[in-house]
Amino acid sequence: MESFDLALLEEVWSEQDFQDLRQKLLPTYPAAHYFRSGIIGSGLCVFSKHPIQEFTQHVFTLNGYPYMIHHGDWFCGKAVGLLVLHLSGLVLNAYVTHLHAEYNRQKDVYLAHRVAQAWELAQFIHHTSKKADMVLLCGDLNLHPKDLGCRLLKEWTGLCDAYLETRDFKGSEEGCTMVPENCYVNRRELEQFPLGIRIDYVLYKAVSGLYISCKTFKTTTGHDPHSGTPLSDHEALMATLCVRHSPPQHTSSHSHGPAERSALISVLREAWTELDQGMAQALWWATITGYVIGLGLLLLALLCALAVGGGIREVAILLWTPSVGLVLGAGAVYLFHVQEAKGLCRARAELQHVLGRAREAQDLSPESQPALQPGRQEGDRAEEQ
Amino acid sequence: MESFDLALLEEVWSEQDFQDLRQKLLPTYPAAHYFRSGIIGSGLCVFSKHPIQEFTQHVFTLNGYPYMIHHGDWFCGKAVGLLVLHLSGLVLNAYVTHLHAEYNRQKDVYLAHRVAQAWELAQFIHHTSKKADMVLLCGDLNLHPKDLGCRLLKEWTGLCDAYLETRDFKGSEEGCTMVPENCYVNRRELEQFPLGIRIDYVLYKAVSGLYISCKTFKTTTGHDPHSGTPLSDHEALMATLCVRHSPPQHTSSHSHGPAERSALISVLREAWTELDQGMAQALWWATITGYVIGLGLLLLALLCALAVGGGIREVAILLWTPSVGLVLGAGAVYLFHVQEAKGLCRARAELQHVLGRAREAQDLSPESQPALQPGRQEGDRAEEQ
Repeated sequence: MESFDLALLEEVWSEQDFQDLRQKLLPTYPAAHYFRSGIIGSGLCVFSKHPIQEFTQHVFTLNGYPYMIHHGDWFCGKAVGLLVLHLSGLVLNAYVTHLHAEYNRQKDVYLAHRVAQAWELAQFIHHTSKKADMVLLCGDLNLHPKDLGCRLLKEWTGLCDAYLETRDFKGSEEGCTMVPENCYVNRRELEQFPLGIRIDYVLYKAVSGLYISCKTFKTTTGHDPHSGTPLSDHEALMATLCVRHSPPQHTSSHSHGPAERSALISVLREAWTELDQGMAQALWWATITGYVIGLGLLLLALLCALAVGGGIREVAILLWTPSVGLVLGAGAVYLFHVQEAKGLCRARAELQHVLGRAREAQDLSPESQPALQPGRQEGDRAEEQ
Repeated sequence: MESFDLALLEEVWSEQDFQDLRQKLLPTYPAAHYFRSGIIGSGLCVFSKHPIQEFTQHVFTLNGYPYMIHHGDWFCGKAVGLLVLHLSGLVLNAYVTHLHAEYNRQKDVYLAHRVAQAWELAQFIHHTSKKADMVLLCGDLNLHPKDLGCRLLKEWTGLCDAYLETRDFKGSEEGCTMVPENCYVNRRELEQFPLGIRIDYVLYKAVSGLYISCKTFKTTTGHDPHSGTPLSDHEALMATLCVRHSPPQHTSSHSHGPAERSALISVLREAWTELDQGMAQALWWATITGYVIGLGLLLLALLCALAVGGGIREVAILLWTPSVGLVLGAGAVYLFHVQEAKGLCRARAELQHVLGRAREAQDLSPESQPALQPGRQEGDRAEEQ
């Protein structure tokens, strides 16, 4: 009913739902796109009042485990979608995304994957938006504002948080996007956060010479304004952004001063450690399943010998097929974790390179202290191995 | 032994081999990177005389079938790697890639996947090189020069073929990169091509204001110049590129004149058809495996009934596990083909959007004939459904 320039949705799992929405929204939003990926789909789609000049998408390399069927993220093929729009002569790159869910904050087995996804998302934005005048990222990041992935994304891309920047906010307390008032939200999951959690974002930045401010920012508050039943389990975010030519004293929203650089270095180090731990975990699983494969093969050989030699022949034949199943199943899990380790190693290598360059810039910058820091440098060398 | 600015390799499957090469090449090439992906790895690596400013990679969504174990491509996680270098104040985006192999040219079951890969490669270059001054793509495309994927890539990115552009060529006949003289090449595979085939490329382009020419282009000729044994089954390509500020009469190497536009439209239509056929094939496989799952479940129910009811109890129990295997196996193949269809549909949608915009541009351009073409427009509408 409200006439936005752009509406970006997540978790539209059914393409038919998208087609229905498209038909209904056609008068206001003549352009629309559904991002297809994985087995179920990325769930991402967009509706735009302005023609879409270009679009593409990037599917995250790591996205949970196929054997965690009850969590289902792996089957979605979570991704980031990119739209290029031309607005009043300016190029806008709008991104929509949905990262892996957090099922257990205390013992989060998906932490390394979510950090790797945040990194891939940041890299995709970094490499595809170099000629854009404005960048907009909307989506369900499944990350709290202070979480490692969120800080990594903001520090590396220089994106600003519309909720934090706006002077005119209306909506749920502390801008939460999962609130206990919403009848679709499981209140037990929010036990530790009585006000709710903020995991959906509108982030933006402009190139030098332009300045974006968030004029108004609104969220729904757990109820539909008309019928009382909420439209979704997450609250909707609505932002009005104002783009101006920046006054001469105003530099780009993301300067590369020493404070920003040291914040970037610190978050990169933290992410490096997390990915490293994830890699160790993946290799541990690959080793364990390697042993299971070995044991399964041994069992198979033993069963063959027993079947040939007589004795408990029937039992041997009966046990043969489960053993084959064990070997094949363990083989699949082994291959999956080898691939997982490669994916994490790749993200770690990209991140480490950026870290190295940020440190070089820090060492070269006139603001930096020229004092020797042998302790830190030893740590660096260890990381680079 | 020759001192290039950049050396880009494919099929370096072992990371240890890369590390050995890195050590040996360190004096000449202080910078190097190995692109990790999939289970085996992408096989891509680079050695550079100049510092690497940034790097990232994109793993192709579609890359053959996991059950075609003897072909192995799926396990490699084939990809395109990107390096950003700064050379004499100019930004160079260098890409290295290796597409899915062609095992049977007469009946190529991987054609749709290779076209989808060529499209993803072109899109990745298109979206990540917008601010680059120069673009370089090197790699084993597994595509002959006139093949659909190769034309699609060149038309959409505007890349020029160094072999075709150079005035100073030395090497194998017709620039072939797989030649019968090479002792590692299976001559029976080259029966139809007595001179060999050209499937490895050096492609480049520059932004407006710059002009790249290929000064010299060399290939090896099936023998190592020193020992006689070739270094690889593919011939190495060596190009010297010369970058100049373009004279005023020289426009960008890739102009968007009516001829280029109509060539782009024609190749996009061809690729659209190929992807569409691939999608139909993927959905056909999904349907067939769907039936197999159904039959397997029916068989399982029957076996359970027989086991409970007595009669041929032992046979029923014996057949139970293979039936479970059948259902699970068919289930995995079903999910794979659903995912394949989604991936092809995604590439087709991106391609169709570009096609639509190219047609709009053609219709709007002053050179185009304003005559009505009702036949063509009907075809367009059918494709857009």
